[in-house]
Amino acid sequence: MTQPNIIKTQSDIPQTIDVTVFDEYGEPMTKQIACERALTVYLNWREIVTLMTLGARPDMLVLGYLRNQDLLHDVNALDSVIIDWETQSAAVVTHEQNDDIEETLSKKTVTSGCGQGTMFGNVMKKLDALVLPRPHLKQSTLYGLLESLTHHNDTYKAAGAVHGCAVCKDTDILSFVEDIGRHNAVDTLTGEMWLQGQTGGDKIFYTTGRLTSEMVIKVAQMGIPVLLSRSGVTQMGFDLAKQLGITMIARAKGHRFQVFNGAENIDFDVKGSRDE
Amino acid sequence: MTQPNIIKTQSDIPQTIDVTVFDEYGEPMTKQIACERALTVYLNWREIVTLMTLGARPDMLVLGYLRNQDLLHDVNALDSVIIDWETQSAAVVTHEQNDDIEETLSKKTVTSGCGQGTMFGNVMKKLDALVLPRPHLKQSTLYGLLESLTHHNDTYKAAGAVHGCAVCKDTDILSFVEDIGRHNAVDTLTGEMWLQGQTGGDKIFYTTGRLTSEMVIKVAQMGIPVLLSRSGVTQMGFDLAKQLGITMIARAKGHRFQVFNGAENIDFDVKGSRDE
Repeated sequence: MTQPNIIKTQSDIPQTIDVTVFDEYGEPMTKQIACERALTVYLNWREIVTLMTLGARPDMLVLGYLRNQDLLHDVNALDSVIIDWETQSAAVVTHEQNDDIEETLSKKTVTSGCGQGTMFGNVMKKLDALVLPRPHLKQSTLYGLLESLTHHNDTYKAAGAVHGCAVCKDTDILSFVEDIGRHNAVDTLTGEMWLQGQTGGDKIFYTTGRLTSEMVIKVAQMGIPVLLSRSGVTQMGFDLAKQLGITMIARAKGHRFQVFNGAENIDFDVKGSRDE
Repeated sequence: MTQPNIIKTQSDIPQTIDVTVFDEYGEPMTKQIACERALTVYLNWREIVTLMTLGARPDMLVLGYLRNQDLLHDVNALDSVIIDWETQSAAVVTHEQNDDIEETLSKKTVTSGCGQGTMFGNVMKKLDALVLPRPHLKQSTLYGLLESLTHHNDTYKAAGAVHGCAVCKDTDILSFVEDIGRHNAVDTLTGEMWLQGQTGGDKIFYTTGRLTSEMVIKVAQMGIPVLLSRSGVTQMGFDLAKQLGITMIARAKGHRFQVFNGAENIDFDVKGSRDE
């Protein structure tokens, strides 16, 4: 599998900065806040969108974003990805034909994603053909994984205001990313898996963000059958999880969690902790 | 000031539904989750976007969204807003000319908003001309307001997974809205204020969501000089608050808060609570 040229004009971009704030006593103190950087994405030199990001993995973010927006299809046709923080731009060059780019671009999706519009129609049509494998998940594995995850969210611990996502296998965290928006974090992992040619069938997807329709759709598109979140779910996220056969575990904190779909795939080998 | 015809084919749309989940003991229980509905927005019969929303105030949401996307400018030119949940569509009809609609639509902004792209450039140019009044804010007023707000977030209390926003004056909550995304909630209040011809100079804007660049920009566009949040801030949100002269108070919970900008506009008449 060919890999594109990835060029970054800068590396080790800081994730947080220090600022002075005044507390409720009117006393000054130093706090860390998360960085937020504009990154304008160009596909074959055509301006597509401006993403606001922490900036940790911009190459994967832009690839994953374009893929999830149905603007990139062939990983082998990728030529290069150029990230230039000075001009705050990310250029993706591909040998793919892009004839319907205008049409795709004119159908916007916003924040919590797709819907009854034409873009949603297309997405759901493709998902109809998707068959996700049935996972076999142990409660003890879930607990081990949640414990591992607590060691990864550095920016959140320092500065808050970010969401984290991870692709996991059993109790191993294969990739963890934090970003300003949960959608950026998912897109970054999509880009990474796509470029590395990884399959999702034996993976678990973790997010600190809520399980809305768009989150469920993106994880299904990655081929991952288990979705785990610290937060809650929405009705459409729930309905889609049922429709797509995704095992959906939400409000996971410590030893507590709620299984919204796929409880039959979980071996409750630990049965919670009656002492908590 | 003329008001458009607002037609809704249904009212009292439920905000939550009950579902059965399994806890960490494998035991079933009933939980409430927030609804999430697709609403495809049409402007003069042209499909613009599909928004995912709780559905509480769809007319204000679509007006505010279109306004914040720079697609509506003249409130007196509005003809009607038709919300049809059966077809999940919201049609806005206006007498305004819409010649550059294609150009505006082709410049996308995503999740945490605008950036260095052409859309951001336009937004920042307009904001350059903005002069926000300097507020005089008492700490006791802030505490009274935060207390009032705890009585409003019904959907969040029942089901979580939503963000709330409010336009306030002193300790009064003039309007409170919850939605799946914090951007939808802000857009809804933008729509409301715009339609009612309200000015923002003497108001406070509250949100449960993070103060990112897009949040700060939208509140500035509403003419509101005080931004209050339960959550944190990002670097660009902070920089914009300084640039636009917005008094920015974050991580506000109980008697604790952090003033990121505009501390000189606050009278610390209560000086926190040393007992907490």
